[in-house]
Amino acid sequence: MTGSDFLHLDPAAAPPRERTTWLAAQLRTAIADGALGAGARVPPSRELAAELAFSRGVVVEAYRRLAEEGLLLAEGAAGTRVAETVPPATLPGPATDAAVARPETLHLSVGAPDLSAFPRAAWLRAERRVLSAATSRELGYADPQGVGALRIALSGWLARSRGVVVPPERIIVTAGVTGALSLTAQVMRDRGLTACAIEDPSADGNRRILDYWLDSLLPVPVDADGIDVEALTATGARAVLTTPAHQFPTGALLSPARRRELVAWAEQSDGLIIEDDYDSEYRYDRAPVRALHASAPDRILHVSSLSKVLAPALRIGWMVAPEHWHDDLVRKRWATDLGSPALPQLALAELIRTGALERQVRRLRLRHRERRNAAVAAVRAHLPDARIEGIAAGLHLLVLLPRHVDDTALAERAAAAGIRVAPLSAYRFSPGDPGVVIGYGPHSPARLEAAIAALGRLI
Amino acid sequence: MTGSDFLHLDPAAAPPRERTTWLAAQLRTAIADGALGAGARVPPSRELAAELAFSRGVVVEAYRRLAEEGLLLAEGAAGTRVAETVPPATLPGPATDAAVARPETLHLSVGAPDLSAFPRAAWLRAERRVLSAATSRELGYADPQGVGALRIALSGWLARSRGVVVPPERIIVTAGVTGALSLTAQVMRDRGLTACAIEDPSADGNRRILDYWLDSLLPVPVDADGIDVEALTATGARAVLTTPAHQFPTGALLSPARRRELVAWAEQSDGLIIEDDYDSEYRYDRAPVRALHASAPDRILHVSSLSKVLAPALRIGWMVAPEHWHDDLVRKRWATDLGSPALPQLALAELIRTGALERQVRRLRLRHRERRNAAVAAVRAHLPDARIEGIAAGLHLLVLLPRHVDDTALAERAAAAGIRVAPLSAYRFSPGDPGVVIGYGPHSPARLEAAIAALGRLI
Repeated sequence: MTGSDFLHLDPAAAPPRERTTWLAAQLRTAIADGALGAGARVPPSRELAAELAFSRGVVVEAYRRLAEEGLLLAEGAAGTRVAETVPPATLPGPATDAAVARPETLHLSVGAPDLSAFPRAAWLRAERRVLSAATSRELGYADPQGVGALRIALSGWLARSRGVVVPPERIIVTAGVTGALSLTAQVMRDRGLTACAIEDPSADGNRRILDYWLDSLLPVPVDADGIDVEALTATGARAVLTTPAHQFPTGALLSPARRRELVAWAEQSDGLIIEDDYDSEYRYDRAPVRALHASAPDRILHVSSLSKVLAPALRIGWMVAPEHWHDDLVRKRWATDLGSPALPQLALAELIRTGALERQVRRLRLRHRERRNAAVAAVRAHLPDARIEGIAAGLHLLVLLPRHVDDTALAERAAAAGIRVAPLSAYRFSPGDPGVVIGYGPHSPARLEAAIAALGRLI
Repeated sequence: MTGSDFLHLDPAAAPPRERTTWLAAQLRTAIADGALGAGARVPPSRELAAELAFSRGVVVEAYRRLAEEGLLLAEGAAGTRVAETVPPATLPGPATDAAVARPETLHLSVGAPDLSAFPRAAWLRAERRVLSAATSRELGYADPQGVGALRIALSGWLARSRGVVVPPERIIVTAGVTGALSLTAQVMRDRGLTACAIEDPSADGNRRILDYWLDSLLPVPVDADGIDVEALTATGARAVLTTPAHQFPTGALLSPARRRELVAWAEQSDGLIIEDDYDSEYRYDRAPVRALHASAPDRILHVSSLSKVLAPALRIGWMVAPEHWHDDLVRKRWATDLGSPALPQLALAELIRTGALERQVRRLRLRHRERRNAAVAAVRAHLPDARIEGIAAGLHLLVLLPRHVDDTALAERAAAAGIRVAPLSAYRFSPGDPGVVIGYGPHSPARLEAAIAALGRLI
C-alpha cells in the first residue's frame, strides 16, 4: 500500500480520474484547518508524487491551482510554501465560534473524528449506485422511521458491533444523537417527565439540548467506575442520560457492578436509561464492551450515530427504544419533519452492505490510536504533574491537572497562543479538580506533540 | 435533441459510461411504478437504441439484466414483454399505504412530480464537486440555519423566481415544508398561539402536522378567489396557513382584492400569515404571480421546498420569517436536530449556482404542462358533466362532479379497479360539492387518458 506521511494522504481515496482535484482539495482543507500552517513548506512535487504513486504532473498541477488561489507560494528553487495571509474561505461557516475564523488556531476541542478521512470516493460510489437504482417510490416521501434498507443494514451492524440485537422494525433512524435526544426529551415531556438526571461532568452539547426541552437537569457525580448510582437514586429522577461505554469527558468505563446497579435502579424506579453510545467504535486496547442495551431492553433507550466514524454533517444516527416508547417517538419524528432524507440513508445502507463502513472504522481506529498514543506520550513528557484519566478509547483524553491550576484561565491563555482546548470546568455542574479535555481525532502526532508541549509551557 | 416517447426516456440524463445501468434502472422503475404494466411489450432493442442514440448493445444488455431479474420475458421473434408476476421490490417501502404494494395500481394521488425525471446525473456531478471541495469544517457540525452557500444561492433564486427579496441571513433551511410548519407551530405554541386558521378544503398532510402541534384548527372557506378573509376574521384566529399562489386543492389563485384584504387582516389583528408556496414553479399559461411575502414581510412567514421540483426524499425546504420570529425558529431548529445534513445542501447550492435547477424546472414545466393538457382533455371527453376548477398550474386538477355523486364511494370503486384517486371530501372540514383531485405529475398522457376514461365508466 502506498501513502504519504505528509498530511496522512491516502491515495486510495482519490477517484482515479480526479486525482488532481482530490489532491488540491486535501491541501486546501489542510490549509483551512490549519494542519498546514502559514509559511509551512510542502514537499517537492517529485517526492510527493513518488510517495503517492501519482504522476508528477498531478502534484504540479494541484500546487499550481492552489498557487492561483493564493494559498501556496512557489518560490523557485527554494520550493513551495503556504502563503502567510490565507484568503478567507469561500463558504461562510457557522458563526458560533470566533476562533473558527482563525485558520492558524489548532483546535484540540473534542468530538471530531479526522474528517479529512471521510471516505469520499466510497460515498460517491454508493450514491451513484443508489441513484441509478432508486425507484420513484424511494424518491418520494419515505418512512418517518427511516428507510427499510438502512434499518435492515443497521440491524446487522448493531448486532455485530454492539451486541444490540433488534429487528429492523425496532430501529428508528434519527438526525444524529441530537435528533434522538430531542425526540426523547419531547416524548418524556408529553408523558410528564420534565426532569432528567445527567452525568456530572458531561457533554455540553447534549446538556444544552436536554435543557432546552426539559424543566430541570439533575447532575449525578461520576467516578472511575462511571456514574454513581446511589447518587442517581437520591435525585429521585425517573430518567437518566449516561455514557456507559466511555463516559464523556472522564473516559471511565461503567464497571460491571455499576452496570448491574444501574439496571436495578431502572427496574425499581420504573426509570428510563438513555444510553449514549457516541464513540464506542474506538476502543484501542481490546474489543469494546457490549452496549448496556442488552441488559434491559425494556428500560434502555440506546442512541448512537455515525458522526464519529463518517461525519457530523451527515446527521444520521439511530435509536432503539423500549417498546412502550417506540410509537410515540416515531410519531413525534413524523410530526417534526416526516423523517430523514432518503438518499444519504440509502448510501449509508450501501456502505454497510458492501463492508466499506467496516473498513472505514478499522482504518480510523488505527489512525486515531496512533494519535492517542502520541497525545499520551506528549502529556507524559510535557505535563509531568498531570494525570490521564479513562480507558484507551474514543477521540479525546481527559488530562487532570494539579489542583492549583485554574483550567478556564489556562484555556484562555492557550486560545491566545493559538491552541483551543476545552477546560474540564466547562463540562462540570459542580466544582471539581481542574483539567483539560484534548480532542486528538483531527490532528497528526507531530501537531499534537507541538500543541501539548505549548500547553506545558503555559502552565 | 434525442429522446424516446417510450417512457419519456431522456438519454441526456444517462451518465456516459453507465448507460446500461441507467436504462435498466429506468425500466425497473417503470415496472415497479406500474408505468409499464404486466404483459406490456417493450420496443424492439434496435428501435429503442435508435431513438435514444445509444448503441444497440446497451439496450440488449439492459433487457437481459431485467430478464434475469424476472421482470422481462424475452419471447424470441414475438419480442420482449413485462412479466405477468412481478417479484416484490428488493427494498421495503413505507408500509403506510396498502395500495403501494400493488404495482398494478395507478396512483393519481396528488403532490408528486415526475420523480423519474429526478436529475440523477446532475445531482451526482454536484455531489462529486462538493465532496472533492468540502473542507473538514463543512463535514463537521453545520449552521442550524442552513449552510451559507445554500442560503446565498437561495437568496438569488427566491428573488428571481418568487419576488421574495431577502438576504441569506434571513433564510432558514428546513426539512421540507413539513419541517418549516412544525417549527412554526411549535414556536406559535411557545408564544401562546394554540389555534391556527386553515383553508377548507386544504392539504391533509399539512393539516395533520398542525393538528399534532396545536390545540385547534379553524377552517376557513375558500372560493374561486381564494381564502374568504371575512370568514377568517370571524374566526378570531391570530395565524393562518394559506396557499395564495395555487390553493390546494381547489387550484384558485388568491385574487388581488383578497391579497389586500388578507394583508389588512394581518395588520389589524397582529396576525401571522403562513404562506405555503408549495408548487409555484408550475404555472403553464403565464408567468407565476409574485409570492405574497413581498406585500408584508413583517407579517408573512413564507415557506416552500424542492419536493415538487426535485424530490420529497431530499427533505429540503426553506422559510423566511418575520424578523421577530426568526431567532426563536432557528433556536428551535438547533434544539431539534442541529440542522439539515450539509452534503445535500451543498449539492443543491451547486445545482442552483450552475443553472441545473433552473433547467430542471423548465424541463419539468414542459412535461407537466403536457400532462395537465392530456388530463384536461380526458376529463372533458370522459367526464362531460364534471367541471375543472382552478388555474393552469401545479401538479393536480380539481374535478368537481355532479352533486349526486358520492366521491368517497367513487374513490373506493376506483381503487378496487386499480386507480387510486383522492376524493375532494378527504380534504374538507365541512361538507361540500363532490369531486376528485387528480395528480398528473408522474403519469404519461396515455396513462392519464386511460385512467380518466376508466373513472368516467365508474361514475
